[in-house]
Amino acid sequence: MRYRAEILTIGDELLKGSVLNTNALFLARELTDMGFSVQAQVACPDSPAVIGQKLAQALSDRGDLVILSGGLGPTPDDVTREALAHYFQVPLVFSKAQYAGIKKHYRKHGLSTVPSDVRKEAYYPENAVPLMNRYGIALGFYVRQGNGLVVVLPGVPSELEKMFKELVRPLLVRHFSDLEPRPKLVVKIVGLSEPAIMRKLGRDFFKGHPFEFGIYPEAGEVSIRIMADRQKIIQRLTAKIKKRLGRSVYAYEENRVLSEAVGKALVLRKRTLSIAESCTGGTLSSEITKIPGASRYFKGGMVVYHNSLKEDLGIEKSLLKKKGAVSREVALALAKAVRRRMRTYYGIGITGIAGPTGGSAQKPVGLVFIGLATPQTARLKKILFWGDRRQVQTKAAKKALEYLWHEIQ
Amino acid sequence: MRYRAEILTIGDELLKGSVLNTNALFLARELTDMGFSVQAQVACPDSPAVIGQKLAQALSDRGDLVILSGGLGPTPDDVTREALAHYFQVPLVFSKAQYAGIKKHYRKHGLSTVPSDVRKEAYYPENAVPLMNRYGIALGFYVRQGNGLVVVLPGVPSELEKMFKELVRPLLVRHFSDLEPRPKLVVKIVGLSEPAIMRKLGRDFFKGHPFEFGIYPEAGEVSIRIMADRQKIIQRLTAKIKKRLGRSVYAYEENRVLSEAVGKALVLRKRTLSIAESCTGGTLSSEITKIPGASRYFKGGMVVYHNSLKEDLGIEKSLLKKKGAVSREVALALAKAVRRRMRTYYGIGITGIAGPTGGSAQKPVGLVFIGLATPQTARLKKILFWGDRRQVQTKAAKKALEYLWHEIQ
Repeated sequence: MRYRAEILTIGDELLKGSVLNTNALFLARELTDMGFSVQAQVACPDSPAVIGQKLAQALSDRGDLVILSGGLGPTPDDVTREALAHYFQVPLVFSKAQYAGIKKHYRKHGLSTVPSDVRKEAYYPENAVPLMNRYGIALGFYVRQGNGLVVVLPGVPSELEKMFKELVRPLLVRHFSDLEPRPKLVVKIVGLSEPAIMRKLGRDFFKGHPFEFGIYPEAGEVSIRIMADRQKIIQRLTAKIKKRLGRSVYAYEENRVLSEAVGKALVLRKRTLSIAESCTGGTLSSEITKIPGASRYFKGGMVVYHNSLKEDLGIEKSLLKKKGAVSREVALALAKAVRRRMRTYYGIGITGIAGPTGGSAQKPVGLVFIGLATPQTARLKKILFWGDRRQVQTKAAKKALEYLWHEIQ
Repeated sequence: MRYRAEILTIGDELLKGSVLNTNALFLARELTDMGFSVQAQVACPDSPAVIGQKLAQALSDRGDLVILSGGLGPTPDDVTREALAHYFQVPLVFSKAQYAGIKKHYRKHGLSTVPSDVRKEAYYPENAVPLMNRYGIALGFYVRQGNGLVVVLPGVPSELEKMFKELVRPLLVRHFSDLEPRPKLVVKIVGLSEPAIMRKLGRDFFKGHPFEFGIYPEAGEVSIRIMADRQKIIQRLTAKIKKRLGRSVYAYEENRVLSEAVGKALVLRKRTLSIAESCTGGTLSSEITKIPGASRYFKGGMVVYHNSLKEDLGIEKSLLKKKGAVSREVALALAKAVRRRMRTYYGIGITGIAGPTGGSAQKPVGLVFIGLATPQTARLKKILFWGDRRQVQTKAAKKALEYLWHEIQ
């Protein structure tokens, strides 16, 4: 059975454009994966009247499931629980269990008393079932509406995500027991542009049984997402993609990132890595160390921002003077030097012009050199990136990971 | 005059959670800054029926302005222009001017013929006024509805943003000529929790002339956003905040980040900085170097992930063995050593347990020591952070910036 879902994200900060709505993305993806047909995402203000109106609209649009998030905090502008109680015409009741959790939370952090305004976060509408929040303060809850469900979750993304996975997903599986997840294929690709991917896939890729196809460029890489009615169609498409895109695919999973795929490949081959980065200023090291267990292959890095630090690492002053800090020679020398100094198998050296100033006709903003050294060789990539300072930094870090990925294979 | 606006973003990819809805954020912020009251953001699927229904709802909710984006592309699933023509019961007509632009675009890229499905991107509803797209293929347009406006823009973010600034903003200023941008105050705060800020502001802060107040925790800091009817109210509130929150406020601007405020303070005092980070793995260096001109005060950093690198920096093996790599002694030693090695005024040393593994009863996951050394002294902060690995890393980096910020003042 296909059920219809609607997502209501609540908060003036969304309507004023103060924060990016990542909760809507997370919930949409999770619900789609479970087999729901998401009909709309609505962001609405911290206004009980508007929340009530949008909830009524969602339910009247034959919504089987409405998930609301946000507006459960301690401050006066947080009115979601009051709005729900008003909508259902029931009083708010107190969850002793959640309040005990809040007190424990405070004690753990050396605070003996819970402020009175925080107490309100343990309340829920009388007709609701509480959803305990072990990761924060605000209680979630859900209400049965006819055959459907209204679920309310806190807006803090980490709390929302954990509560969804631990409490809401099992609840939905129980409640909508004949839900049919549609087979899905996620393909994460580096080193090929959108048109290049389409050319490699070819026109005949789209013949035969129909399927839904989406291709999305994001931050130096491209994702393909496919949904079909049967697993067999997905299998056939997967085989074609493997053949036609080859090693440009680094993952067939939604939440895998390139630095994780690189990390797994390094562990598998028992290889270690060190980095000397200049223009990326720590961005590549940060990207690598965000992966749990990175200490197994990453020994360390240097942010050789100032030329004196490049010299400390063993780059000769004369080379820096003759070729310039942003040069293929210095990128190679950094890769070799950091590899030697930190005694690793791979060494990466990055130097470039992130901007907005510092560019010239010969060396424009966006120019980046990436050196990659192994015990046997040292190679180099020269790339000109588009974008502002931050985009150049993140794209260069991604490009270095891509380079390493292809080298390890 | 206050006008009400609603934003409709169209595309199945939004409802499946395949792409982040940055257009909604951009439009919400621009409209709010212009003085509109944004009532809702609605993401809806590529379905003519749903688009028509959501547009009708938006207009019936007393919407003076409805902006739609997306679904103007060449593929069969792009149906926004057809949906609008159907809603207004008018035929689609052809823009020769836009088509000439499309042909030019194709020629520029070495293509002599425009594919037939691309031709449809030059059509618009007969009752609309075209908005020429110089940055891409799809024509935008707008329709007068009573006293209000319905504006339709392509969904490619770069095209949408440029067309909004060049065409839509002037149109809105002309059409809603008595639009009054509301005075706005943004306050960015570190080192105080939401409840602590509320206590410090006090109850009397909210007395007197009414104003809109929002308080938003995000990644180790808190923002306050206030809107009022008159600049005088904003001035009075600003004075109160300055007095009550003092040096915990690092900026009174929307787009200022803490690392930028720290950078300005360092430049002002002609001080330099270096960093030795372990558990944060480059995150602090990356945060600092994303600011243009960081090379004026940031000399460099070391990601001392492996213990051998800590020893290379001069941390004694016996200290690492006796106290452990995660200890107040090692954090202090890292701060002092990196300051000396890199010859800077400030040195920061960070060591901790980012998790998910590696914790113990004495040293749990989330425990972080931050050392801060100057030529005169060396001080230490011990903090236990909540959250997953990435959160611990980003919060610890933010906390180190906060520590430095207070030290510089």
